[in-house]
Parts: sequence; structure tokens; C-alpha cells
Amino acid sequence: MQMYDIIEKKRNGQSLTSEEIRFFINGYTEGEIPDYQVSALLMAVFLQDMTEAERAELTSAMVESGDQMDLSAINGIKVDKHSTGGVGDTTTLILAPLVASLGAPVAKMSGRGLGHTGGTLDKLEAVPGFHVEVSSDEFVKLVNENKLAVVGQTGNLAPADKKLYSLRDVTATVNSIPLIASSIMSKKIASGSDAIVLDVKTGDGAFMKELNDARELARAMASIGNRVGRSTMAVISDMSQPLGYAVGNVLEVEEAIETLQGNGPADLTDLCLELGSQMVVLANKAETLDEAKERLKENLSNGKALEQFKRFVSSQGGDAHAVDHPELLPQAAHRIELPAKQSGTVSEIVADQIGKAAMMLGAGRATKESAIDLSVGIVLNKKIGDHVDEGESLLTIHASTPEVEEVKDKLYSTISIASGTAEAPSLIYDTITES
Amino acid sequence: MQMYDIIEKKRNGQSLTSEEIRFFINGYTEGEIPDYQVSALLMAVFLQDMTEAERAELTSAMVESGDQMDLSAINGIKVDKHSTGGVGDTTTLILAPLVASLGAPVAKMSGRGLGHTGGTLDKLEAVPGFHVEVSSDEFVKLVNENKLAVVGQTGNLAPADKKLYSLRDVTATVNSIPLIASSIMSKKIASGSDAIVLDVKTGDGAFMKELNDARELARAMASIGNRVGRSTMAVISDMSQPLGYAVGNVLEVEEAIETLQGNGPADLTDLCLELGSQMVVLANKAETLDEAKERLKENLSNGKALEQFKRFVSSQGGDAHAVDHPELLPQAAHRIELPAKQSGTVSEIVADQIGKAAMMLGAGRATKESAIDLSVGIVLNKKIGDHVDEGESLLTIHASTPEVEEVKDKLYSTISIASGTAEAPSLIYDTITES
Repeated sequence: MQMYDIIEKKRNGQSLTSEEIRFFINGYTEGEIPDYQVSALLMAVFLQDMTEAERAELTSAMVESGDQMDLSAINGIKVDKHSTGGVGDTTTLILAPLVASLGAPVAKMSGRGLGHTGGTLDKLEAVPGFHVEVSSDEFVKLVNENKLAVVGQTGNLAPADKKLYSLRDVTATVNSIPLIASSIMSKKIASGSDAIVLDVKTGDGAFMKELNDARELARAMASIGNRVGRSTMAVISDMSQPLGYAVGNVLEVEEAIETLQGNGPADLTDLCLELGSQMVVLANKAETLDEAKERLKENLSNGKALEQFKRFVSSQGGDAHAVDHPELLPQAAHRIELPAKQSGTVSEIVADQIGKAAMMLGAGRATKESAIDLSVGIVLNKKIGDHVDEGESLLTIHASTPEVEEVKDKLYSTISIASGTAEAPSLIYDTITES
Repeated sequence: MQMYDIIEKKRNGQSLTSEEIRFFINGYTEGEIPDYQVSALLMAVFLQDMTEAERAELTSAMVESGDQMDLSAINGIKVDKHSTGGVGDTTTLILAPLVASLGAPVAKMSGRGLGHTGGTLDKLEAVPGFHVEVSSDEFVKLVNENKLAVVGQTGNLAPADKKLYSLRDVTATVNSIPLIASSIMSKKIASGSDAIVLDVKTGDGAFMKELNDARELARAMASIGNRVGRSTMAVISDMSQPLGYAVGNVLEVEEAIETLQGNGPADLTDLCLELGSQMVVLANKAETLDEAKERLKENLSNGKALEQFKRFVSSQGGDAHAVDHPELLPQAAHRIELPAKQSGTVSEIVADQIGKAAMMLGAGRATKESAIDLSVGIVLNKKIGDHVDEGESLLTIHASTPEVEEVKDKLYSTISIASGTAEAPSLIYDTITES
């Protein structure tokens, strides 16, 4: 088999066989196939696409290129959730204890990531004492006992994907549905869960700005998951404005706690109930989505979800007391309000611009080496559709310095106030259950 | 300017500007842009194509990446010819002296090349004493005096093309009209002639098997030539069966001499008259194609073309006596006939298979380092449409050994004999004069 023939075949719009895909992935991972041949193939894939079968084979080949988590010692159907990323997206911190409180085992591997704010790990580590250095045996034991544990990414998961992603990043082949879908799914599948709920974001703050693109990506990922034997479904949710009110690390932890107490923002709560009920049903802990949602709501109001979260925090060394007293978490030195310059209705809050403002405050990482400030960020006081009076605060900036003129300018240019009414965007656009 | 943006633009089907094309070509030639980005761009070009303006800019950028021949000291309109390659294609050896005999200056740079037989240089060097090591000054002087000289490829012509070609060769991006056309034209234009006649072959023995592809390539090359200020036209000719009868180095020289004596094969003579009359008109040495053709025919029959050839051979150190006595050229030790196994009409002689058989005999180079045997090859005794009796010789094998069973098997499988009649293919399919 020759890489040349594989490139030529895809260039001609033909489908690659399982053997051809494995030859290319294994050869590239082992350094036997050079970058310049792979980038030509990637461009051919970008322009000629891949069938569902090819995408699943590509994903499997990438999974098999490295280590795979073995969660078989954990009882029950392990259920995982993946979000394609957005601004103020605190769902994991809420969803994991919420569905675990109904007995669905969540054995989560999480990352730090680059972006507007830190990853789930950074946020959890804001709780004093909390750590993710957990051995495999301990991880299994924790999930069996508590139904929930979170570890940092360990092992060499999908090294082919890492190598391919670096190459895509410099050859204008990132934005390709088969390549994005297989990249995300390879890491999820290598992480070992049996069932996967995908939260695919759409809107200005999302990777997929257009609903149709988000839908295509969601279908592609669901198809891959189900083809490789993991029950997979996707929800397409809004990311035109930030989810919830908080954008920042500790600020999002505080919001997650409020939500687990039953006092969270409506949109964040609703999305968690939607995603959570899907997870609970896939984990076979409820018969129907309605039943699952009812029981999840109960556990928000009766304190069981919060208890689950505290148990989880304690089990990984964290100070559960801080969950009841979030003021113990790192706080920013300065809180600065952003008063509305006119009265009216908030008609636009561009999510990715809010994220960039949080990044300017120091909430996120630009490179792997960047340090992040857990305390800083933005808390919206108004969202799209809300009335605001002139001088009333649109949002509160949590900063390490009182000098935030540049951030304020950015924020003003990001929020629009209309004289008439404005409708809040839909929260959930679609639900994809492809098999 | 970033290579990434250039790749992305072409990937999206947009046209690249002159600046972008030069940025990419110069950066690649200087080693600043890596192979993996260039191969992604090449695949994008393959699948998204280039406009005529982009192709001309690409060609100019490749020309400017290296040395350019300065032929300005040669009087008159210097006219060149390029064939896209085929089997038994001896036209250069005939055309160059033929058009020079009408006063059109031919300052030819020629190569050895890889393929079924050697290049024009190899063939000329079969004449004892002939050499192509000629200084620039001497080259100019020779053309001014004799209207004809041939040198080996000197200087660093179109290094960008060499580098790009090597990459295309391993990334399945060779067969792309904009890339083939700019590659060929960059070398022709760097060679310095004012006018260019292209002989684009089509059929089994040609690079472009299909007439439509050949026509597209011819149009692309003519457009590039004319856009960069060189009068360029193309003839599309048949290469389904070999041109003329001879396939081999000395064998083709002998056939060229016969043709210059007015006794050549009809197809070879006709094609030379067609290409030659175009060259003569472009060189402004005749008013019309008909007039040019008449005068070229005269010079074949009155011996002037042959005289011109002998003068040219002598001027570069060759023994002109060998032109009148071709038996002085290297001869193969063995001549083996291939008798027809049945009577009928020859209906197929697959050109590239005949070429491969000549290669098996040692007539061509597989790699740059291969030695070639000038004496060996094949002389057809029959061509498509000819009647043959059982036992009559289809062709004569000129070999260095009597053991040629394998070659004979190949040749038998390559020549078809039908019971009815068979029509000879057309010689010239089209003439492209794009401006």
C-alpha cells in the first residue's frame, strides 16, 4: 500500500477503505509518512469530504493510535458529555454531580485547555485542596463509591489526532466536518465512556457560527459514536450570548453552586436539565426523558445534587465547606460596574467578544504556558431581552486592577441596546439522535 | 502576508493575486515556506483550479525564481518548439534544421530526460564528435551565422518548478492543468525564445490520453505564453501509435535524416511540415501557413534542409559525413523480426507499450543515472491500417542480445490484427491559437 495512491483516491472523490485509513494513520503516527503527503490528503478530505463509514474508521484508527481508558471495572453504563465550547459554559460542573445524583456513573477525564477561561480542571482546582492526581485504581473506586470522579488527561490519548491537528492548524484544514468530528470523537471514545451526550454550540460565541454547520457537525459526531458502538446523541444549543451570567473561573464555580442549589440562571438550568435527562436515559437510570427531567429537578430542589457535588469535592481532597461558602474561593480585588449609556432593551451581547474581554482580564490562557487568574471575569446583570435604564449596571467586571478602560470600551462595543423590544434567542435548536 | 491565508483563499475557490503567488513561489524557493503548506496549496489548486491570469502569474514567478536566457543578441524572432512527449517523436531533429533553412533562428536548449528513449541531446551525440558544450557567446554567434544551434540545459532555470515538481510527484498533484501548463511554460519562457509552437500529444502514448484533456492543456499553455508576451500556439497531434517507424536513439536519427532527404514516413513528414509552417510564420519568415509549407516542402526536396542539418552538425563538432552515411552511427548487434501470427489489418499499436519495449531493450533512462544504449530500439514495418500477411514482419527489434523473448511477448500483446479493415488515426486533431 502506498500513501500516494491513498491521496490520489481521495483527490478523485473516492472512499478510502478501513485498511487505507489505518495505513495512513499508523504510518503518520509512527513518523513513516511525511507531513507533506498528509497535508495533501487533508486538503483532499476538506474538499472531497468523507462518508460516514470513513469518518468512523478514521476515528477508530486515531483511538487505536494511543492509549484507551479501561473503565470496565466501573459498574453501570458510564456516561460522558462533551461541549464544543462556548463562553460562560459551566455545564460540566453542574451536570456531572446532577446526573450522578440519580446513580448514573460519570468517570470524567477533563482538560485545562486554551480559551476565554480555564477548563473544568482549573475551575475545580479553585476549591482549596481539590486535586485531580488520582491513580487508575482510585479513579475506579471513587466512581463505584460516589458515581463521580474527575481526572486530568492521563496517558497518550489519540496521539494521531494531536499530530494531525497541529498540521491542520497550519494548512487551513481545520474547518472540515469529517476532520473536526473525528478529532473530537477520537478523544471522547479513547476516554472510555459507554454513552456520550454532545452539546454542540451555535452562534457568535461558538466554533460553528451557523446553525446548519452545527447541525452537520452534530450529525457527524453522533453517527461516528453510534458506528463505533457508543450510544451517542447531540443537543444543539445557543451560544450567541454567554450561557448563564458568569464568565470566569471562580465566578462560574459560584454560578454552578447556585444552580445546584436550585437558584441558577434559567438558561443554564434548563440546558443542564436537557442534557442531564439525555445522559440519565442513556445511562438507563430513567425510562423516559420526562421522567429523568422530573427527577433531576427534584434533586436540584431537595439538595441531593448539591450533596453529590460536595461529596465529590471532598473525595478528591477539596474543602466542601467552600461549596457552602463560596466567598472562601479566590476573589478579585476590584468590582467595576458597566452602566448603560441609554435606556432600552438589551438586543445583543456578542458572546465571543465577552469571552475576549474576560481573556483581557486574565481569565484564560493564550498558550499552554500562560498562567490564569482564577478570580477575574465578568458577571452579566442583563441578558438579551432584558430592559435596562440609563445608568443601571449592564455587567460587573471582576478585575485585579481598577484600570479596565480598554475592557470597558470593548464591552460597550459588544452590547447593543435597542429602543423597542428584543427577543431572547432560543436556548435549544435541535436534538440529534442518529443511529 | 501569510502562507496560511493563501492556502485558505485557494481552498475556498478564490483567485490569488500576483503578490500572493510571488510570495508563495519565492518563499518556497528560498526554503522559508515548508513542504507541508505547499502540498496543501497544490491539492487546493488541483481541486479548485486557477484562472488564466493566475496561471500566467505562477509561470512568471517560476521563471523569475532562477536564471533566464538572454537571446537578445540573436537577430530576428527566435522560435522554439516543445512537444509534450511521446514515442518515436523525432520532430525536433527534423524541424530545427528545416525551419532554420528558411531563415527562422532556432536557439534551442535541450535536455536528456527520462523516458522510453533518450532526449534530443542523446540522439545528436550519437553523431561522432558532436557536442553541446557551447559558451553563451559562441551559442549566439552560431545562431547568427547558421540560424541554428543546440545547447544542453545550462544555468538554474526555474528552480521553483523543479522543487514544486518533486513535491507534486509524491502528493498526487501532477495531473493538474494549471500546474502542468505553468511547469512546461516556465522552462520554455526561461529558455528565452520569442515565439513558441507547442506539439501537444494525445492518445495512449501521450501524457494526455484524452483529446479533451490535451485540448485543455494546449489552451492553457497558449494562454500563458501569450499573456507573458511570447507568441504561442499549439497543435494537437496523435500519439495513439508511435510517430514514424523508428523508436530508439540512432534509429530515430536515421529516420530524421531520411525525412530531411524527403524520404521520411508520411506521418512524421506531415507533422513536421505542420509544426514547421507555424514556426516559420511566427518567425515572420512567411506571410501565410500555405506559403510556409510550400517553401518547407521545397527545402526537403531540393536538399537545403539536409544541408542545413549538416552545417549545424559540423558547427558543433560533429562528423557531417555520418549524416550521409548513417551506417557509421552506432548499430545494434542483432536485428530480430517479429512475424505476424495471422493475416489481416493492423488495428492497434499501443504507443506507450512500444515505448516500454524499447526501454526494456535499453534505449531509455529510468533514473538520471541510467546509462542508455544508443543503438537499440524498434523499427515498425507496419502501422495501423496496413495489411499484413501471416509470417510477414510487423517490426524489427534492434538489440544488443539475441535473447529478446520477453520483449517479443510484450510486443505481440501490444499489436492487434483485425480480420476486416482498420482506419489509421488522424494525425492532427486541432490547432489552438489563443491570444
